[in-house]
Amino acid sequence: MKVKEGASVLIVSPDEKTYLVKVHSGKGMGTHLGEVNLGDAIGLEYGERIYSNLRHPFLVLDPTLEDRMMKLKRRTQIIYPKDAGLILLKCGVTNGMRVVECGSGSGALTMALANAVAPTGKVYTYDRREEFSENARQNLENAGYSGYVEFKHREAQAGFDEEDVDVVIIDLPSPWDGVPAAAHALRGGGRIASLSPTYNQVERCVERLEQEGFVLIETIEVLVRTIRVARGKTRPVDRMVGHTGFLTFGTKALPESPLD
Amino acid sequence: MKVKEGASVLIVSPDEKTYLVKVHSGKGMGTHLGEVNLGDAIGLEYGERIYSNLRHPFLVLDPTLEDRMMKLKRRTQIIYPKDAGLILLKCGVTNGMRVVECGSGSGALTMALANAVAPTGKVYTYDRREEFSENARQNLENAGYSGYVEFKHREAQAGFDEEDVDVVIIDLPSPWDGVPAAAHALRGGGRIASLSPTYNQVERCVERLEQEGFVLIETIEVLVRTIRVARGKTRPVDRMVGHTGFLTFGTKALPESPLD
Amino acid sequence: MKVKEGASVLIVSPDEKTYLVKVHSGKGMGTHLGEVNLGDAIGLEYGERIYSNLRHPFLVLDPTLEDRMMKLKRRTQIIYPKDAGLILLKCGVTNGMRVVECGSGSGALTMALANAVAPTGKVYTYDRREEFSENARQNLENAGYSGYVEFKHREAQAGFDEEDVDVVIIDLPSPWDGVPAAAHALRGGGRIASLSPTYNQVERCVERLEQEGFVLIETIEVLVRTIRVARGKTRPVDRMVGHTGFLTFGTKALPESPLD
Amino acid sequence: MKVKEGASVLIVSPDEKTYLVKVHSGKGMGTHLGEVNLGDAIGLEYGERIYSNLRHPFLVLDPTLEDRMMKLKRRTQIIYPKDAGLILLKCGVTNGMRVVECGSGSGALTMALANAVAPTGKVYTYDRREEFSENARQNLENAGYSGYVEFKHREAQAGFDEEDVDVVIIDLPSPWDGVPAAAHALRGGGRIASLSPTYNQVERCVERLEQEGFVLIETIEVLVRTIRVARGKTRPVDRMVGHTGFLTFGTKALPESPLD
Repeated sequence: MKVKEGASVLIVSPDEKTYLVKVHSGKGMGTHLGEVNLGDAIGLEYGERIYSNLRHPFLVLDPTLEDRMMKLKRRTQIIYPKDAGLILLKCGVTNGMRVVECGSGSGALTMALANAVAPTGKVYTYDRREEFSENARQNLENAGYSGYVEFKHREAQAGFDEEDVDVVIIDLPSPWDGVPAAAHALRGGGRIASLSPTYNQVERCVERLEQEGFVLIETIEVLVRTIRVARGKTRPVDRMVGHTGFLTFGTKALPESPLD
Repeated sequence: MKVKEGASVLIVSPDEKTYLVKVHSGKGMGTHLGEVNLGDAIGLEYGERIYSNLRHPFLVLDPTLEDRMMKLKRRTQIIYPKDAGLILLKCGVTNGMRVVECGSGSGALTMALANAVAPTGKVYTYDRREEFSENARQNLENAGYSGYVEFKHREAQAGFDEEDVDVVIIDLPSPWDGVPAAAHALRGGGRIASLSPTYNQVERCVERLEQEGFVLIETIEVLVRTIRVARGKTRPVDRMVGHTGFLTFGTKALPESPLD
Repeated sequence: MKVKEGASVLIVSPDEKTYLVKVHSGKGMGTHLGEVNLGDAIGLEYGERIYSNLRHPFLVLDPTLEDRMMKLKRRTQIIYPKDAGLILLKCGVTNGMRVVECGSGSGALTMALANAVAPTGKVYTYDRREEFSENARQNLENAGYSGYVEFKHREAQAGFDEEDVDVVIIDLPSPWDGVPAAAHALRGGGRIASLSPTYNQVERCVERLEQEGFVLIETIEVLVRTIRVARGKTRPVDRMVGHTGFLTFGTKALPESPLD
Repeated sequence: MKVKEGASVLIVSPDEKTYLVKVHSGKGMGTHLGEVNLGDAIGLEYGERIYSNLRHPFLVLDPTLEDRMMKLKRRTQIIYPKDAGLILLKCGVTNGMRVVECGSGSGALTMALANAVAPTGKVYTYDRREEFSENARQNLENAGYSGYVEFKHREAQAGFDEEDVDVVIIDLPSPWDGVPAAAHALRGGGRIASLSPTYNQVERCVERLEQEGFVLIETIEVLVRTIRVARGKTRPVDRMVGHTGFLTFGTKALPESPLD
């Protein structure tokens, strides 16, 4: 797999600092280990190296979804891979699905959703804050996912344009406000996920989900701890992320028809 | 979306016990709340209900990837969704990729990988224990993923048939034994992930990864805690899973060519 | 140190089951490995063994504070050593202090407090439920701590008899109800600790602490994970306690006198 | 309780920065909110305030054991209260006991041990590094615990001077090296605790404990997470300490006498 002009690549310095950049002929990048000419990467295999003017080797990699999520331009707190990965599995997001995201934020989760529904599905992402929406759109375009995403600058409360969608993701300060619109947009058996930092949001969100007849409601938190591995002195690292948010899940049941 | 004859469905009892079953006309299923006739589900919308002979309503849902992973027939400890979700994101597994899995186990991770590479990629999964391999194959077929998976009854150490693959997953009691074959099979920039329950396995695995020239080596563990949400009495639950395994990641760098 | 008639001892079976019992001449104890005669322990050194009629050795130990806390007769959820240990340090409970405990429960924390204030301090413990109070009193007496504890069957809200105490511990379903009485009983600079399982309790408790002028308010939770250690296969255990309660701490500031 | 000349006090600024200092008439202390005259505290009740030259109020408190441990002069990684508290309970350290500590470090755990054995017990603490020993001694003296501690500049491996001690604490880079001397110094039924950051240390330490006939061997880790409590927006904090060390416990069994 060869690097092409215009490709997004992950450049890795000898001391494992990483840079997500686009490769263009003649484009330079300054680092603490000298200047590299990104054009040198064109035509290389991924996994090969380019060299700075100080003759330090910089690895050229194709970025993973995680790399793209962690490196995007942030205007908000992003959704972390630890949370996004579990959302995808628990909601069963897969190729061909139609997903509504309410709260585009910086687009990190949008990207993970787009990657999961591609090549035949679509993500519809709503944000009432135009500058966030625009930033997220730019991030998705840079990552090559624009084809799977439609951006809308709108309030969630007003309702979504889509019907019969498979999954709705709610990332709002007042998640409960998005629940009725989600209930309306989801197909029977469709899944909902909501992310919130505080337990108060979770409590009100779950209450609203129950009122709207959602089932299999579940709230969890995900913690990741890094282990520093070295022969004879392996140990967990001193500091870790203690909290990002709580994840709440539910499933849309259709209204029960009366037994006769 | 309507339920068809032969579909895999998730049946949910009023007290939220779940059953993953195939729908067939005339097929019954006994539960603690009476007998349900699965054939009644045919033609319903997902999210609708069938009723037991005791007139209890049972919801009919389409299973998520998580449901399928947690409900498969186990002959080994399975890979949990919390771990699988992060593996997919950190390795960037996506539509069209070719992935080698070394240690099919019960097929839980195989399923997550197959779902991620579909519709145009392929998972090659190796296991030297024929009865495990056969069980995993059955699980994948039941879940409708056979088209994206090739099963092989073979030792990892002997090397893989595939070359230039994007990702290799190692789930072996001696993960280090799989590293050289993985290094050989991976394309430049390809990603590797290994799962192991003990610190000792991690330590030897990382050592071997370093010897084989892998970069961006990282070991983590993922913890999930459930929150019991109820108005005015929201709290984490008393018991949780304290450990499944450590996840180790790395990236294949191509051999450095000498500077001249 | 020799075992005396009437001593509380911890008996440990060869497979490390533990029994907290009183030694009396002629008193038997049935176990899965035969009958032991507890009288045989009299005159032994701690760390020596008595033998069952099936000739299995049972170790005779003097119980630690943890052993006593974990083995007492429970009528309520007990306070665990992981939480009690930190409460003692953060409140600075030490020899000679006067401590009010509001909610005796089964007496586990009472025991830890009594042990810390001994030999010259005192714990005053309140519980409005007479059967709990009586059970806790019995537990403390069995453990030999009665001399350092005074039991009172009373509501906290009614106020405490003591003044100028060093520390108040609140373990009530409505912890905020105990805060004003605590504020009144504490000396300047005195410390308060409250234990509650839910976020909601914590939120209301902290609010009341702020209203009463407490400072250095802090809420934490303590998690303990067991590691299974064995040469070449060391790993965290599969299951752990995910939650007992949140601990909230504060310090009594005296009312500010106006600057003139 | 009034503040006296020479007392160690905890000064708390209006924004809850804390300072552990000795009060002396005429002694000043510079802060971000102006200069305070510590002599102003003499004769005040704890919980009252002194004022900076900018008229900001600073609370005067008596420090807890935690305050003293966290504020001592560090020359090494200290033992944290979360770990120390559980060590005290699990080893049953109490008034009157004789405890050997092997590895004085900065004296944080020494202080917690001294506080627990006072007023009639004694801590014997060994460290081969004279500058550490001297620093720890200074820290204990400042905190008023010198009367309960004896400092020795010596290797652990050489054996301890004490016999029949109740508890031995090992805080060494090679904890297994201290185990035989500990086994020799402990009375029957005595408890041992060892602290180590790496799993490799734990594995070798446990192995040696088993060889020396210790029973009830157990290894744990303690995690503390802070909750940020505020009406309507209560949540765990973003960052936490992910690891300090593993704690290993054991109990000394006397050699089994042959059954005849």
